[in-house]
Amino acid sequence: MKKTLTYGQVGGSLHAFIGDVHRTGIAYDGRAFLAAGCFSRDEEKNRECAEFYGLSPDRVYGDYRAMAEAEGKREDGIDFVVVTTPNNAHYEISRAFLENGIHVMCEKPLCFTVEEAEDLARIAREKGLLFGVNYSYSGNVMVKEARELVKSGAIGEVVNVNAEYLQEYLVDDIGATNSALLKLSSWRKDPEIAGASNCVGDIGSHIEHTVAYITGLGLKRVAALTDTFGQPLDLNANILVEFENGAHGVYSCSQVCVGHMNGLTVRIFGTEGAIEWVQENPNILYYTPKGEPTRIYNRGMGYILPGAAKFSRLPSGHPEGLFTAFANIYKAWITAVLKTANGEELTEEDRDFPTVEDGVRGVKFIHACVESGKIDAKWVEV
Amino acid sequence: MKKTLTYGQVGGSLHAFIGDVHRTGIAYDGRAFLAAGCFSRDEEKNRECAEFYGLSPDRVYGDYRAMAEAEGKREDGIDFVVVTTPNNAHYEISRAFLENGIHVMCEKPLCFTVEEAEDLARIAREKGLLFGVNYSYSGNVMVKEARELVKSGAIGEVVNVNAEYLQEYLVDDIGATNSALLKLSSWRKDPEIAGASNCVGDIGSHIEHTVAYITGLGLKRVAALTDTFGQPLDLNANILVEFENGAHGVYSCSQVCVGHMNGLTVRIFGTEGAIEWVQENPNILYYTPKGEPTRIYNRGMGYILPGAAKFSRLPSGHPEGLFTAFANIYKAWITAVLKTANGEELTEEDRDFPTVEDGVRGVKFIHACVESGKIDAKWVEV
Amino acid sequence: MKKTLTYGQVGGSLHAFIGDVHRTGIAYDGRAFLAAGCFSRDEEKNRECAEFYGLSPDRVYGDYRAMAEAEGKREDGIDFVVVTTPNNAHYEISRAFLENGIHVMCEKPLCFTVEEAEDLARIAREKGLLFGVNYSYSGNVMVKEARELVKSGAIGEVVNVNAEYLQEYLVDDIGATNSALLKLSSWRKDPEIAGASNCVGDIGSHIEHTVAYITGLGLKRVAALTDTFGQPLDLNANILVEFENGAHGVYSCSQVCVGHMNGLTVRIFGTEGAIEWVQENPNILYYTPKGEPTRIYNRGMGYILPGAAKFSRLPSGHPEGLFTAFANIYKAWITAVLKTANGEELTEEDRDFPTVEDGVRGVKFIHACVESGKIDAKWVEV
Amino acid sequence: MKKTLTYGQVGGSLHAFIGDVHRTGIAYDGRAFLAAGCFSRDEEKNRECAEFYGLSPDRVYGDYRAMAEAEGKREDGIDFVVVTTPNNAHYEISRAFLENGIHVMCEKPLCFTVEEAEDLARIAREKGLLFGVNYSYSGNVMVKEARELVKSGAIGEVVNVNAEYLQEYLVDDIGATNSALLKLSSWRKDPEIAGASNCVGDIGSHIEHTVAYITGLGLKRVAALTDTFGQPLDLNANILVEFENGAHGVYSCSQVCVGHMNGLTVRIFGTEGAIEWVQENPNILYYTPKGEPTRIYNRGMGYILPGAAKFSRLPSGHPEGLFTAFANIYKAWITAVLKTANGEELTEEDRDFPTVEDGVRGVKFIHACVESGKIDAKWVEV
Repeated sequence: MKKTLTYGQVGGSLHAFIGDVHRTGIAYDGRAFLAAGCFSRDEEKNRECAEFYGLSPDRVYGDYRAMAEAEGKREDGIDFVVVTTPNNAHYEISRAFLENGIHVMCEKPLCFTVEEAEDLARIAREKGLLFGVNYSYSGNVMVKEARELVKSGAIGEVVNVNAEYLQEYLVDDIGATNSALLKLSSWRKDPEIAGASNCVGDIGSHIEHTVAYITGLGLKRVAALTDTFGQPLDLNANILVEFENGAHGVYSCSQVCVGHMNGLTVRIFGTEGAIEWVQENPNILYYTPKGEPTRIYNRGMGYILPGAAKFSRLPSGHPEGLFTAFANIYKAWITAVLKTANGEELTEEDRDFPTVEDGVRGVKFIHACVESGKIDAKWVEV
Repeated sequence: MKKTLTYGQVGGSLHAFIGDVHRTGIAYDGRAFLAAGCFSRDEEKNRECAEFYGLSPDRVYGDYRAMAEAEGKREDGIDFVVVTTPNNAHYEISRAFLENGIHVMCEKPLCFTVEEAEDLARIAREKGLLFGVNYSYSGNVMVKEARELVKSGAIGEVVNVNAEYLQEYLVDDIGATNSALLKLSSWRKDPEIAGASNCVGDIGSHIEHTVAYITGLGLKRVAALTDTFGQPLDLNANILVEFENGAHGVYSCSQVCVGHMNGLTVRIFGTEGAIEWVQENPNILYYTPKGEPTRIYNRGMGYILPGAAKFSRLPSGHPEGLFTAFANIYKAWITAVLKTANGEELTEEDRDFPTVEDGVRGVKFIHACVESGKIDAKWVEV
Repeated sequence: MKKTLTYGQVGGSLHAFIGDVHRTGIAYDGRAFLAAGCFSRDEEKNRECAEFYGLSPDRVYGDYRAMAEAEGKREDGIDFVVVTTPNNAHYEISRAFLENGIHVMCEKPLCFTVEEAEDLARIAREKGLLFGVNYSYSGNVMVKEARELVKSGAIGEVVNVNAEYLQEYLVDDIGATNSALLKLSSWRKDPEIAGASNCVGDIGSHIEHTVAYITGLGLKRVAALTDTFGQPLDLNANILVEFENGAHGVYSCSQVCVGHMNGLTVRIFGTEGAIEWVQENPNILYYTPKGEPTRIYNRGMGYILPGAAKFSRLPSGHPEGLFTAFANIYKAWITAVLKTANGEELTEEDRDFPTVEDGVRGVKFIHACVESGKIDAKWVEV
Repeated sequence: MKKTLTYGQVGGSLHAFIGDVHRTGIAYDGRAFLAAGCFSRDEEKNRECAEFYGLSPDRVYGDYRAMAEAEGKREDGIDFVVVTTPNNAHYEISRAFLENGIHVMCEKPLCFTVEEAEDLARIAREKGLLFGVNYSYSGNVMVKEARELVKSGAIGEVVNVNAEYLQEYLVDDIGATNSALLKLSSWRKDPEIAGASNCVGDIGSHIEHTVAYITGLGLKRVAALTDTFGQPLDLNANILVEFENGAHGVYSCSQVCVGHMNGLTVRIFGTEGAIEWVQENPNILYYTPKGEPTRIYNRGMGYILPGAAKFSRLPSGHPEGLFTAFANIYKAWITAVLKTANGEELTEEDRDFPTVEDGVRGVKFIHACVESGKIDAKWVEV
């Protein structure tokens, strides 16, 4: 019976923000080890990263296709691949590994088009492979607690949702004119690399997933008022939403809101209560039963519901952060890959990581917002 | 030269919430005294209130028209009237006093229709009378500081606005079926008394005014997604807005958001900085210059700009509250009435109270939202 | 039966901070009216204030003794006097009015020496007169709620107390050398006017009273580490305390703590729960039952206990501030004076204002701290 | 030149709280790998942990002395040892490894007696070995920023310190009578294992170190009021402190304060400004320049000073937590061990991890508090 796994990575050279967080998150539990990689098109960077992690030279690849094929054939080939490239490469890379029989954990957003997204979902399903999409915030214990509370009926039926993800870091792009330079400053601003959206794609998609994860509710339609401020892609969006159950709400995402660093805040209002979670102080959850005082829930305390508590790593008051959220995504993911490798059935509880279906829904959301943004915020079905 | 004033009041019998706050706010500065009233249609309540305030019996009126005429004719007639009835009576009462040459301070929303609102503005203008509309939150020192900061260029050009006014108190109305009883429980739910809107009219209008007061920006159009949850009037609204300068934003107002008591929060984002004000802790203002740490401004400190500081009554850290906001509205109002009575010209600075023009704009906003709400949140010009 | 009262005031000329807050607080309920005064030794200021409030010239006094005698003899003499002079005059003035049969509401601290304080208490008792000492923070609804919760057993037995009152405004006095000038800048720094203490006397005394009011526990002894930073009186004090029930705690008061405006925070820890109240956001109270999430209590909600709720004036979320706290002190005080005037017995509930006994305890506390401060923070009995 | 290290661990079997956090913290940077261990006296637990981490069986030891000797002799012996046993074993274990030429990172508090502590410091000095003591909170970027700000003169000279570390988790020990059972429930309550103190030793020591780290100021003396509530060791302490520069302050630590999970809060007040850091929300630092608004500093922003910024791992708004603080302690530690191994000189900047000298000072602090607690809070020199 397999007890540990090996994995490979495409993208994410040494000190790359997200690539590094994935590796650190995986390292938390010591159950999966980096064994192969294609970290960069830059040969020097690729080798540097491989050396740092002590990879065997024959498992350092200059090309992801070669890697997928070789690892797929090796007796001791990687159990899963982590895809941490810019968005435009997600589809081809993920597909290549699926086709070679390797489970895939891909960064969000999943890919450019709904067709591509559904294609990946189909292949994974047909091949019986696991496919995760790293909506990392759902790894936070208190996001899981929010979900458990909603499931338990603590807030009744959802009647309104108010969620936002505000950042400041692109405020100087407003009205800036050297757009070639602007594109260079971040691939997220370049439609050819980022896809149809910058702001909604990068952070709006996290709102969509976090709310869906907590409430279990899908979106029926959106009316998105987007702002590009003279740039190729959106920098700001205020979005009316309608859920499957008829409830309404508003999502705001922005990269031009001074004073906000990484301000994902989710508030779910129900007939019997409400919850609020603020990503920048993630160990806290606010829960208010109707007519009663707001409760400040602390991760790690005895009252936390079992489905969330089992992910808690530190006693209450000892802050867990983003690395730990990644570690929790991988805790569930690695368990699922191990069980699959060992021929065990996965329970629903085992699947407590974001999947390719979440990724498909995310791409649909992004496209609906972009489309609505182009027609003056008219409603578009998701 | 007149140094003190007398005033009358229509509506607001003893211990009525808003009627009482007006009287207390006026009492702060000891410059205007209650001298006449028509506090209630209930004769007993009317007399009780009059006696409490020691009014002369000949100045206690059973009918506001009689009051307007009598006070208009008296040598020692009231200098201004305070209108604190339910919405449906605002227009007729205000008009009656204007027509008898008496300045009017009316509760918001100003009246039912845009035509009525413009009519009142016209009469006041033609008669050279002052007409205030009590958007009380603009009486807070830190709302004034926000305005002064915006005026000073501290946040650059406004690019996005996110404002909300959330309450919990009507959550049990959702899906409730005894609508006759519901109407009885508050006149605000009864279209005949409250007008076209409950939630947007009562609290959404405060968002509109507070943002306009701070930014000086008018609204071009709105797309309002409203929810009645089976009741005659709206209980919840998420509203996309577009300002005259092209900036976008979102206003959310609700009476069904559990966990929120009186949650007016206004966030204005500009090219150079941002401000945030939270009504429930009104002595604080958050100001963030681009790229720098957020500053927590405290009312009463030396760095507060003069146009706001002059309204401060207590040293910093000694909280001022809603009564004081009313007192500040009346501080400006009474100064304006006194100056007018003494034949002095009013400077722009003297007019730092919400006026009938604000009231007109408010009624337009409410109607645009209601109309948009009826056509599935399509854009409606304000 | 008397329904309204008249009062006089000694000290507190026009626009004087505390004098003005008293008058405004009294004005809230319209049950007591200013009828006589000796507002300032400066004749011009005295007259100016009297005129502003429309006093009859024969009731404007240049000398408090004359005022006490005259008002004591008048048929329509004042029902009570408000003493808002600097500390050094409290004793003589209060005594003069007591001796002329007039109820006294005096600012804190009550007076200079324990002997004087006990003398005032004795005279009031012997003459059957009411004597209030204005520890204004106990007028806050949520301080009353804290007391009601403690009384109800919600926190069990008190085991530790952590309370502080921090201000920044004298930080520049540290090491300053022109002490004559310093004294001039505020009478609070002058031992002849302020008494034995500046910081402990002015704000430490509020900690002592607020904790005693909430817990009902007296202090057995204190060990006070005081700092004068080269000035005549203390600017900073950290004080170990022991309560009658054996519980310990710490009080910190300071006028040199940058970043704190008027930071009175009281935290009471018991065997079953804890409460926390922060003066600068006074409409909130934090209550934590052992092992459970902290509750954010909001003034005005249905769960507030009756002994506190009856003082609430505004719906929840509509902030009450310092003026309202004064108004609440006077609400209880005026009711007590009225009942006494009408020959009614006072219940314990009627006495919900700080009394001369609180004032005596306060003076004892100040002296114990000053004495301990002089002997290197050795324990001194209170 | 050495690029990576190997380490051993004594104590900290699988899933032990602190032992696990050390391993995870070290894993962040992939520069040191677990190679030997003596994780538990329980043979089964020892083997289980070793297997989990894939240790070679010959490097799993049943006895720490054997481990120290064997590893000291091996060509490929561990570069450093991590000591994560209960307090009573720290001294003997650390000493054994030092004597075998191995660098030591030990959990705090360093050991039982001042003599032992100084002994360890002496041996390390004489042998030229590095000795770290894991005061983990100083690994937080914003604690480092606080230190950098103080160093830069931003708050002037320190004049008052108010720091606390409050927990709730032992409140039920108050007055509990089955002390044998109590001891069993945690070794921290057992004098033979924990040493002279429970509360001051476990958490008070963190206050002492964090303040010293930020201010660079040593303590001259303490006056500690401790409470055992009927148990063998202290559960609560309020401590007056005097610093080398004459400034005063108060430290409060408690395990019986309901509502506080892991509430380490440090406030340093100076002549020119003040800083506040709250461990439970560690990515934020409050800095107030005298007379100006408080600034909310965010880790990861451009204004963070270089000595702190270089430890930041994630963009601003992406929370780092306790694991990351450990990773940062180890980042500096591993760099220092690597440089030493490679024969490089350590700069002062390289020594940005808590050392055995900090550990000695910590033991002195604990003993001074315990001694003072026994003599009714009289002053005791540190």
